[in-house]
Amino acid sequence: MTPASITPASITPDRQLRHLLTLDGLGAARINELLDAAASMRAHAMGGTALRQVLAGRTVCNLFFENSTRTRSSFQLAAQRLGADVLNFDIGMSSVKKGESPLDTLRTLEAMGIDAFVVRHAENGAVAALADGVRPHTVLINAGDGRAAHPTQGLLDMLTIRQRKGTDFSRLSVLVVGDVRHSRVARSGLHALRTLGCADIRVCGPSALLPEPAILSGCTVGGDLDAMLDGIDVVMMLRLQRERMEEGLVPSLTKYFYDYGLDAKRLALARPDAIVLHPGPINRGVEIAGDVADGPQSVILEQVANGVALRMAVLEQLLAR
Amino acid sequence: MTPASITPASITPDRQLRHLLTLDGLGAARINELLDAAASMRAHAMGGTALRQVLAGRTVCNLFFENSTRTRSSFQLAAQRLGADVLNFDIGMSSVKKGESPLDTLRTLEAMGIDAFVVRHAENGAVAALADGVRPHTVLINAGDGRAAHPTQGLLDMLTIRQRKGTDFSRLSVLVVGDVRHSRVARSGLHALRTLGCADIRVCGPSALLPEPAILSGCTVGGDLDAMLDGIDVVMMLRLQRERMEEGLVPSLTKYFYDYGLDAKRLALARPDAIVLHPGPINRGVEIAGDVADGPQSVILEQVANGVALRMAVLEQLLAR
Amino acid sequence: MTPASITPASITPDRQLRHLLTLDGLGAARINELLDAAASMRAHAMGGTALRQVLAGRTVCNLFFENSTRTRSSFQLAAQRLGADVLNFDIGMSSVKKGESPLDTLRTLEAMGIDAFVVRHAENGAVAALADGVRPHTVLINAGDGRAAHPTQGLLDMLTIRQRKGTDFSRLSVLVVGDVRHSRVARSGLHALRTLGCADIRVCGPSALLPEPAILSGCTVGGDLDAMLDGIDVVMMLRLQRERMEEGLVPSLTKYFYDYGLDAKRLALARPDAIVLHPGPINRGVEIAGDVADGPQSVILEQVANGVALRMAVLEQLLAR
Repeated sequence: MTPASITPASITPDRQLRHLLTLDGLGAARINELLDAAASMRAHAMGGTALRQVLAGRTVCNLFFENSTRTRSSFQLAAQRLGADVLNFDIGMSSVKKGESPLDTLRTLEAMGIDAFVVRHAENGAVAALADGVRPHTVLINAGDGRAAHPTQGLLDMLTIRQRKGTDFSRLSVLVVGDVRHSRVARSGLHALRTLGCADIRVCGPSALLPEPAILSGCTVGGDLDAMLDGIDVVMMLRLQRERMEEGLVPSLTKYFYDYGLDAKRLALARPDAIVLHPGPINRGVEIAGDVADGPQSVILEQVANGVALRMAVLEQLLAR
Repeated sequence: MTPASITPASITPDRQLRHLLTLDGLGAARINELLDAAASMRAHAMGGTALRQVLAGRTVCNLFFENSTRTRSSFQLAAQRLGADVLNFDIGMSSVKKGESPLDTLRTLEAMGIDAFVVRHAENGAVAALADGVRPHTVLINAGDGRAAHPTQGLLDMLTIRQRKGTDFSRLSVLVVGDVRHSRVARSGLHALRTLGCADIRVCGPSALLPEPAILSGCTVGGDLDAMLDGIDVVMMLRLQRERMEEGLVPSLTKYFYDYGLDAKRLALARPDAIVLHPGPINRGVEIAGDVADGPQSVILEQVANGVALRMAVLEQLLAR
Repeated sequence: MTPASITPASITPDRQLRHLLTLDGLGAARINELLDAAASMRAHAMGGTALRQVLAGRTVCNLFFENSTRTRSSFQLAAQRLGADVLNFDIGMSSVKKGESPLDTLRTLEAMGIDAFVVRHAENGAVAALADGVRPHTVLINAGDGRAAHPTQGLLDMLTIRQRKGTDFSRLSVLVVGDVRHSRVARSGLHALRTLGCADIRVCGPSALLPEPAILSGCTVGGDLDAMLDGIDVVMMLRLQRERMEEGLVPSLTKYFYDYGLDAKRLALARPDAIVLHPGPINRGVEIAGDVADGPQSVILEQVANGVALRMAVLEQLLAR
């Protein structure tokens, strides 16, 4: 399977968004519409009963072929705060272990009256591949597929940047740091940044962790983090999976932090009002110093809060027709 | 423990159904009453808020001593759509591992204010055995015990047949194919078919997978699937567990499919309007060809949808007094 | 980390209880206030919709770093019956496995709009240690930390005693039996009994299972269970973990039952109206005979029911401001 760009299956005949599979191919208007909706949800994203009728009587299923308690929890809370029923389908204990295909699992759940599936899968394109098999009114939201895409993460990152830096992305200098090669967060973030008109996108990481060149189209690429930070408004740190060391792609976590970790001294090389994003969970002392993660320039917890609002907006837009 | 037939514990003093432990001994009138109730639930089984008051304030616990995410999900959605609270009690992580008996686990949960328990257990009769120990108003629903019974599956199969073939089962020819020996689905299905007056029930499978003779009472038994399909209105396929091969009961999956798998060519030997049922999860190419499972005669997904409606009807009837 | 006594972090500036971390340091007035509130919740603790507005729109997260399906279920039902949304965060599958600290996990969930965390952790003081890091309005409830404290269990035990024996604890003789050394239940129970003025507290167990002397302050300690039972109103049995045998602290389960198990003959040595408590899950024939656990003097299931009411009262008092 190959990463999907936006396909006819993702759009309804009247040009509405039907599924959210990737940000690749979504136009700036559509992205801004979702961000605007999320911004207006923000006041209700932390709880309350004001929006409980929006999806009352609808059912959202978290269908995670790959575990992620954080992302699943964010979607669960988003759905509950819109009044939807939530079914968490734990694949670890399911028929998939008995050899059932993901599409058969999904179709079975669909027949139980699931209106939207939030799907995570370890393989690139696995979520988009399901889109051809679902019923006309069933909605799919990609919660991360392989290294390919994590569109709600990309959108919540843009929402967080916009809240702090305004809606004109063309004036921003953004730096993505770390393991871009294995990161669906980076792929979705780069798509969104380009679409929103960001003119100065930089990517920094060891060459072993850089992706295929197409991903880096239009980006300035370099390995010297200190130099890359100059003039930067937004630093998007990526998580380093410990298995990269076992795979020999990174010599040691200490060396990685020395070369690519963001500490306070380094952050001072960016603009004084630069903000720091991280998709979490953070590795303190590996890709980011604890005092930077907890410091005034960090917007990591804002990202988390925005994640609930953004997912509410996505669910509302795709389901509440 | 031995499989339970209907016992005094299953019926209230005023002749109402108290628990649903087995279909063995349930009369046609009671089965038809449940099917009628399920049929009238069908419009609400896929979601909506119309029935949210039916079980508002009541709590249903899925107490699964054996994992089954599908069946558990079906019961969870049924209970939620009637407005009940649902507690999923995951035995894998529970006190049972600390040596607590199933009855002590159930009594503890009962004391927390559980109104109905949906119980699955790997041993024959294990659910019925709990019935003697519960409080007067606590309801038990058997979600599958060993090879003995899976009454809601039996009922949802009858509901599905009735929708397509009408309520007069005496005119139907029904064929059950596969591993009847290890199947609680088959046992509950055969009970229901007999009770509803089906006069031509046939069973086909390798002799190593046929059950004790009492189970097959009144059935025509044979090993030649092609011959058995002649004149059949309803084909009920059973899942083949892969462990049957390891146990030496089946020589190979390929051979099994050759002898007992339902493909399009074989299905053409049945009546042209024959329908195909399967309790899922299906093994494509083992007991059923993919194109038959997905074809126009398959009612597999209707079974799934009916399962939610049927479970709503059972919960409503047993709890909403 | 060391066990926490009540700290400034547990009390709001206007002297309201902010977190429930331990019973150590909670005064009798505060404990009685919680018990009174729980008693008045009792009628609604088994279900119903009367209190669904109390926490409507609020979210309670069960954050269990150590598994306990029973306690988690009790909190889940308590929160649901007050109308709260519940998020069960299963650490077994979470980012904690990826090296995230408990506080980072909690902060992330807090940023999703969690109002109260019910936290269990295997280490002494681990829950109290989180209190310094949470936001001003976030509430923590200790659902058991190491051997240190299990305050809701201590309170529900007191509620159960009070219902049967009245509110004047000064007239009661209470005996705690078993593995006090490893028991957070015993520690919280002893704190509560002392605070409520119980003058005759006795502790009985093998010396290898007795705790540090400070825990036993003011208690009469002995190893002869028959003698210790004389004149007793309340017997609080403790669970014996089977690993105590593997650790060599207990020679055999049979010998343990012979010396410290509560059977009917022994119970007859206490006052005729003595009641028997056990936090569950019970080991029949290890620390308690089955007929005692199921007998008329046992209040074990009342403890379970009171647990839901008590947790509703705690959630209501800490959250509904």
